Amino acid sequence: MTSEGWTWPPEYRGDEVPDPAEPYWSRARETMAPDDRQELVLERLKLVVRYAFDHAPFYRRKWGEAGFEPGDLTSFEAFERIPVVTKEELRTAQAEHPPFGDYLCVPQSEVVRVHGTSGTTGRPTAFGIGRDDWRAIATAHARTMWAMGVRPTDTVFVGSVFSLYMGSWAALLGAERLGAAAFPFGAGVAGQTLRAVNWMAQMRPTVFYGTPSYALRLAEVAREAGVDPRDFGIEILFFSGEPGASIPAIRSQIEKAYGGRVCDSGSMAEMTPWAHLSESTASDGMLCWQDIVYTEVTDTTTHRTLPFGATGTPVYTHLERTSQPMIRLLSGDVTRWEAGPSACGRTYPVLPEGIFGRIDDQFTVRGENILPSEIDRVVSGLDHYGGEHRIVVSRADTMDKLAVQLEYGETLAGDDAAIESFRRGAAEALQVVLGVSTIVVPVAPHTFERTEFKARRVIDERELFQASMRQA
Amino acid sequence: MTSEGWTWPPEYRGDEVPDPAEPYWSRARETMAPDDRQELVLERLKLVVRYAFDHAPFYRRKWGEAGFEPGDLTSFEAFERIPVVTKEELRTAQAEHPPFGDYLCVPQSEVVRVHGTSGTTGRPTAFGIGRDDWRAIATAHARTMWAMGVRPTDTVFVGSVFSLYMGSWAALLGAERLGAAAFPFGAGVAGQTLRAVNWMAQMRPTVFYGTPSYALRLAEVAREAGVDPRDFGIEILFFSGEPGASIPAIRSQIEKAYGGRVCDSGSMAEMTPWAHLSESTASDGMLCWQDIVYTEVTDTTTHRTLPFGATGTPVYTHLERTSQPMIRLLSGDVTRWEAGPSACGRTYPVLPEGIFGRIDDQFTVRGENILPSEIDRVVSGLDHYGGEHRIVVSRADTMDKLAVQLEYGETLAGDDAAIESFRRGAAEALQVVLGVSTIVVPVAPHTFERTEFKARRVIDERELFQASMRQA
Repeated sequence: MTSEGWTWPPEYRGDEVPDPAEPYWSRARETMAPDDRQELVLERLKLVVRYAFDHAPFYRRKWGEAGFEPGDLTSFEAFERIPVVTKEELRTAQAEHPPFGDYLCVPQSEVVRVHGTSGTTGRPTAFGIGRDDWRAIATAHARTMWAMGVRPTDTVFVGSVFSLYMGSWAALLGAERLGAAAFPFGAGVAGQTLRAVNWMAQMRPTVFYGTPSYALRLAEVAREAGVDPRDFGIEILFFSGEPGASIPAIRSQIEKAYGGRVCDSGSMAEMTPWAHLSESTASDGMLCWQDIVYTEVTDTTTHRTLPFGATGTPVYTHLERTSQPMIRLLSGDVTRWEAGPSACGRTYPVLPEGIFGRIDDQFTVRGENILPSEIDRVVSGLDHYGGEHRIVVSRADTMDKLAVQLEYGETLAGDDAAIESFRRGAAEALQVVLGVSTIVVPVAPHTFERTEFKARRVIDERELFQASMRQA
Repeated sequence: MTSEGWTWPPEYRGDEVPDPAEPYWSRARETMAPDDRQELVLERLKLVVRYAFDHAPFYRRKWGEAGFEPGDLTSFEAFERIPVVTKEELRTAQAEHPPFGDYLCVPQSEVVRVHGTSGTTGRPTAFGIGRDDWRAIATAHARTMWAMGVRPTDTVFVGSVFSLYMGSWAALLGAERLGAAAFPFGAGVAGQTLRAVNWMAQMRPTVFYGTPSYALRLAEVAREAGVDPRDFGIEILFFSGEPGASIPAIRSQIEKAYGGRVCDSGSMAEMTPWAHLSESTASDGMLCWQDIVYTEVTDTTTHRTLPFGATGTPVYTHLERTSQPMIRLLSGDVTRWEAGPSACGRTYPVLPEGIFGRIDDQFTVRGENILPSEIDRVVSGLDHYGGEHRIVVSRADTMDKLAVQLEYGETLAGDDAAIESFRRGAAEALQVVLGVSTIVVPVAPHTFERTEFKARRVIDERELFQASMRQA
């Protein structure tokens, strides 16, 4: 794996592109035996950790407090003991060492691009990206887009905003690097969606990048304008920024609307190239491109790596970033990983259901950790699901009760036997996935208000109960 | 001038940057004797015209109808006889030969970027830009930004929307090519201006690109948020997309608000690299970078080149574009040109007042062609100008009458003698510039509604008069 550009520091100067018939951008790196890759990754981790220690007061301070130094890194077990980095620590480091924090490992004059978090909560975090990193990001995205089936003959329409958000830029960079035509249309300006419809009808791009919710919105606007989005001729739609593209119901809605294939991708803006998690043409889940960013799915409390099959929170380490390398950045997301290989022949671990929640959304019922997104996923996959639901957690005596109010589809209306069968099927499916029994209450279609993409569906009555106890 | 990358087809593969102390990116090309340059430009025109003829059915058809063929091009006089291209012709060519029209001179597979006009009127025009052209555009913008004083140590904040509009992309490209840090923030999304203020305060970019109206808006939002825009530390603000940056009153308003130096730039999106018209540190008008795009200021009817000193409409010819080269594209803008050299030592022709109007806005009073922008320019430069005015054209007997209702400043209120002196000064200044006598009617400040940047200030009562005559 030292071939194909896998050097430290990364060097991606050429502009070669594989033969279009070749399924892999970097065959050796993508298809090697997992154990061989792990061996190389460990060697790379030693270099990256040493580099971060040498260049970043941030890491020297943090690791010093934890009693870790680079020489201790002799195994993955040792690596797992390195304390995770939180987003809050990055914000603090930037406030104290503006503008890029004392984890910027290149001279500030080497920074060629500035981006940042949207800063909806607290001080935003600035990303300072060096010239070599910019090339490495381009190459990484070209590689992962190649695995999605994007080729130089394609035209890639980028339908998401070009600003702080790295997603649009990385999709553009990847398209440029692999030699496709890029149509960076953007999004977010008043009236722009209808213009997007007109341009897509006129230019017929073959690839679309954006967020799942925007793709659905765009399809709706197209239909309102009398245009069938299938007529755009889009073959591949790839996404990041939201979990939707890995949720079967949303995925199939998009695929039906456009007649193209959906690929999910993405981790965190701090981890750009974020497409180090991304699907291939095999459509069997997001792959963890371990030679770009080393991903561990970890225990949410100890942050030790979990075995394949387990559900936990990803922790990420850059293997190809020199400007602001992240060593064990805690995502706070939730996913389940499998060993791989993918049906496409890549030997990376796989996230069959993508990223499906945030640790913070988790609640506990009778000792079981439950993610609202697990329930969303189960019910949205049911036949005759009416499109909305609510999750109600309450307490009877000392016992937690989990109930789901579930809209049934129009076709069941008035047919009590069918509704009862729907209820029973839902309860069984939820029991299997959640491990706790669930009371399913079927309700008529359109009972619940339709909300924006990030709907709040959980009502925890235990909090009300406890509050009333305290007041009494 | 064959050195420094001036070849046909253009080849800009390197990433060298001059020494920061060097005032010129391409010293020979920028400072050579004008006659020598003209000689080289004529040779280049022959190559470009031959190339367009060989590759574009569009030009063969158009020139065939006009009885012109490339062999006829033996002098600038012959060149001036080539019929101009109108935007309407481009639209028609694209409708008939989608998506890029039959003036696309490279195979469609060579197109790496798609952009387009905003299409506010009629079918939008798509720009298909080839890989080599993309590099040439980057280099051209790096050169012109270098002349503005931008250096690799700068951080360039791009505060305009990234979508179809080429302006933002070309500014970004130029920044990248010259090795500055680029902060492509964008604009146009709800709430983004306040976020721009916060980011500028946090990151302190040294260079700003956007539209003049947006820069003023941004300064206003900053002040409302309790931030003095001078504290951003911006040294250079460069603009395109609107004529404002060459209008002295607006220019000085921006310079005062930010404490930085203003540079105007820009021609037309079709002519990208549009910064082939752009100011240098000398601040003596936009230079016509004749080795990038050959500019002729022409008679608005015959489209023959006018002598230096004259006012007319620019006609542009690409000297470094292979994908969709424009040969004598009619701008419809109005400008006045001078021979140069600029005080910066560049030997290009100069547009001392920038682009100051559109042919279509022109109206005639007693046989004189008058541009509303000429009046705007005169009155906005008057001491005690109140900030708004209206232009009223009417007819008394058979005689056209031109009147300007002019707000005086707050400080004059109640002082009749001062108002009369203001009136007399305004009338004299207008007479000098317009060549026709003008009735000036002073009105109190805030008489007129404040409108968006592209205010309609002309009221032509002759049309009402004539309409009423026909009805009688």
